[in-house]
Amino acid sequence: MIAKRKKAAVIGGGVIGGGWAARFLLNGWDVNVFDPDPEAERKIGEVISNARRALPALYDRALPAEGTLTFCDDMGDAVSDVDWVQESVPERLDLKHKVLGSLSQMAPEGAIIGSSTSGFKPSELNEKGARAVVAHPFNPVYLLPLVELVGAPERTAAAAETLKSIGMFPLVVRKEIDAHIADRLLEAVWRESLWLVQDGVATTEEIDEAIRMAFGIRWAQMGLFETYRIAGGEAGMKHFMAQFGPCLSWPWTKLMDVPEFTDELVDLIAGQSDAQSGHMSIRELERLRDDNIVGMVRALKRTGSGAGGVVKTHESSLDLTEEKDGLPVTVRRQVPTSWTDYNGHMNETHYLEAASLATDRLMELVGADAQYVASGLSYFTVESHIRYLDEVHAGDQLTITTQVLSGEGKKMHLFHRLWRSDGALSATVETLLLHTDLNARRTCEPKPEVAKKLADLAQSHAAYQTEGVGRYVGQPRAAG
Amino acid sequence: MIAKRKKAAVIGGGVIGGGWAARFLLNGWDVNVFDPDPEAERKIGEVISNARRALPALYDRALPAEGTLTFCDDMGDAVSDVDWVQESVPERLDLKHKVLGSLSQMAPEGAIIGSSTSGFKPSELNEKGARAVVAHPFNPVYLLPLVELVGAPERTAAAAETLKSIGMFPLVVRKEIDAHIADRLLEAVWRESLWLVQDGVATTEEIDEAIRMAFGIRWAQMGLFETYRIAGGEAGMKHFMAQFGPCLSWPWTKLMDVPEFTDELVDLIAGQSDAQSGHMSIRELERLRDDNIVGMVRALKRTGSGAGGVVKTHESSLDLTEEKDGLPVTVRRQVPTSWTDYNGHMNETHYLEAASLATDRLMELVGADAQYVASGLSYFTVESHIRYLDEVHAGDQLTITTQVLSGEGKKMHLFHRLWRSDGALSATVETLLLHTDLNARRTCEPKPEVAKKLADLAQSHAAYQTEGVGRYVGQPRAAG
Repeated sequence: MIAKRKKAAVIGGGVIGGGWAARFLLNGWDVNVFDPDPEAERKIGEVISNARRALPALYDRALPAEGTLTFCDDMGDAVSDVDWVQESVPERLDLKHKVLGSLSQMAPEGAIIGSSTSGFKPSELNEKGARAVVAHPFNPVYLLPLVELVGAPERTAAAAETLKSIGMFPLVVRKEIDAHIADRLLEAVWRESLWLVQDGVATTEEIDEAIRMAFGIRWAQMGLFETYRIAGGEAGMKHFMAQFGPCLSWPWTKLMDVPEFTDELVDLIAGQSDAQSGHMSIRELERLRDDNIVGMVRALKRTGSGAGGVVKTHESSLDLTEEKDGLPVTVRRQVPTSWTDYNGHMNETHYLEAASLATDRLMELVGADAQYVASGLSYFTVESHIRYLDEVHAGDQLTITTQVLSGEGKKMHLFHRLWRSDGALSATVETLLLHTDLNARRTCEPKPEVAKKLADLAQSHAAYQTEGVGRYVGQPRAAG
Repeated sequence: MIAKRKKAAVIGGGVIGGGWAARFLLNGWDVNVFDPDPEAERKIGEVISNARRALPALYDRALPAEGTLTFCDDMGDAVSDVDWVQESVPERLDLKHKVLGSLSQMAPEGAIIGSSTSGFKPSELNEKGARAVVAHPFNPVYLLPLVELVGAPERTAAAAETLKSIGMFPLVVRKEIDAHIADRLLEAVWRESLWLVQDGVATTEEIDEAIRMAFGIRWAQMGLFETYRIAGGEAGMKHFMAQFGPCLSWPWTKLMDVPEFTDELVDLIAGQSDAQSGHMSIRELERLRDDNIVGMVRALKRTGSGAGGVVKTHESSLDLTEEKDGLPVTVRRQVPTSWTDYNGHMNETHYLEAASLATDRLMELVGADAQYVASGLSYFTVESHIRYLDEVHAGDQLTITTQVLSGEGKKMHLFHRLWRSDGALSATVETLLLHTDLNARRTCEPKPEVAKKLADLAQSHAAYQTEGVGRYVGQPRAAG
């Protein structure tokens, strides 16, 4: 049974609305966009193009097939049959009242109406009769998982489930306050930074370096309190507070009023920002930012920390069961930019990385899964041979099929074929593994049920061709 | 000529002093420690043990041989012949005066005297005649590059050069103010977070999630202003300020006074922190943090952003010229934890990754370097064969030698041997590359000077044994 495709309406197509559209689309939702701005289609197109390059690169499995994007001239048409409506119009309360009021009338009863507001409370948004919840995301919406949810509990609970299903991290805020949680912290840093620039203590670039060379790195993986817990050492959080608490009355808390927002201050900051980053266009900065975020979040996936844990959980929900040419598909994924090298194509290492993931999947298929490994049994690779047959580029879709050449006794002999989405065979990886006792670090026989499944696969794959098997490096092609 | 080993004295051996000791030691400096605490040796040992595991993992080349660590009973002995003195005693001005005054008397004239103070200005530190500069680092000191330098320009300039040579990022602060730059920002967030907890808006865990799921990830790679520049879009920073500037007078700036630091608030925060992180010991949290930071900084190395750029620059200063058994050493490095897998050893992929770096180095040695690639010529791998002969673990030192089997015409046929530091041959990687025109994406002849150097190497390596060359997967060992 094929589940009904979900549909979202995005009202207001700026950077935030475009990010929402991309997040839904790339998770297989259809998306209607309503935005009277004649530039909206171009702007959203640019955001989606960035997202296509970055979001799938977080995952080691393919995301669902992309949904359909439709631009609507009428707000009522856009929301008539959707499951989620996301409002991202400018941050003016009168405008929010008008738009959210109309949406509450026009959208289906069961649809969530989320507002991207960074400042307003749900009680303010709904004071003219709307039924919105705050669903406040962070730019780039297609990469950063956080969504602050504020509003009626039954609505935020339903909204949280949907957000998880598209790989986001809903944080239900306990009490409504102005600016929710994250933006209060951001605003505190912004205020202090403006003082530093105005007083000539630091330039925008120096402040950015002070952040990204130090606590920014800490905060990408643990937050404020867990970081300080560590700083407190074995004596714990109480010890840290005793040490650091008095800082609150140290002299540097004196600058807590707001700097006057003069034209001079704006010019000073804009000028410093040009000097710092003006050599790159916004598009270039966006792609650099996205490459960095993807690389860091992929690093966090390893330990399951923060955003990496969110991707890991979401990835495990992505279905992989599939066959191609009578062989099991063991990998289906997009090639991330970080897999490419100075030659402008996928680096040799990552052909093997993809094949290694295919071996892991084949092991799962024969029952040598995580639980089996936890029981002290696994397979160790002893030999591999790779033929690089055609170039693969960032963004290419890669499909790997795995043929079991033999599976007798301790041996598991596999032949992976790496297919590009245009049908080209880009590489083959032949690999021999031996079943191993993880405690003794010595080879041993697999459990009978694993041996059986492996033998069955070997038998059913026996009729398959073996061109390219058994080659040595530099062997003339005719002999292959 | 062998350069004289540099020597540092670390005065005060807590988490920060220990971090400084580790940073110097692992960069080849000798380190004297003075700390009257009887636990100092154990505490510093724990920090250095964490550092040994994490800092080298940032690099794809070996750091210099570790220096010698000496614990001194007398402060005068500790500093008598050092190039750098780093004071990290508790944050009390009277104590800083006493210690820095003595150090200024006892240390050599030319030695830098740095203070790790997070709050005091150099004019305060030196008001009793000391000659210290502020050199304020961030925990973990062995991983995070930032050091805020404040003080007399000639001293901070010299200090900056030394800090760069040990892989750090010195930020010379233009004007002395309480708490320098970064801690002012941290303090603003801390203050706002205490309000959020006290008012029951969020728990410590929720605040941490709000940070690490969103802006923490942004700030690890670009800071505040560059991030907002992007948010402003093509219209630039001025547009962003026009949009966001008014926020400064929005209602959420009202909570700018300091929450009262009561026992109840301390208990509330300590209790929430236990609920959030109490299932892990501080040691476990430290290692998780370090693994995350290493992974993220390694990801940033790819683009050269922030801390990744610092490591990249430092790495290029690490010398590699060396031979082993008459063959060039093409890789010498420590195996990072992130290269290991569920089998508790280095994953098959990273044998090839290491060998791929060895190929890159061999290409440099024959003149096919970054400049050559930029001119539109390179080598593409067409076939590789890997024998996995022995396990390699996180922290192992890996040395790769590269034998040129042949280098005629377009072909470059290499044989890499991966040696563990205990002398075991852990793998061989045989690889065939073809010289390629990067624009036409077709094979072509190399430039004569490259062909010549390659042929010379092939000739000088011809006498070397070739056991293991030319094997196919599963070939009986006797035939190898």
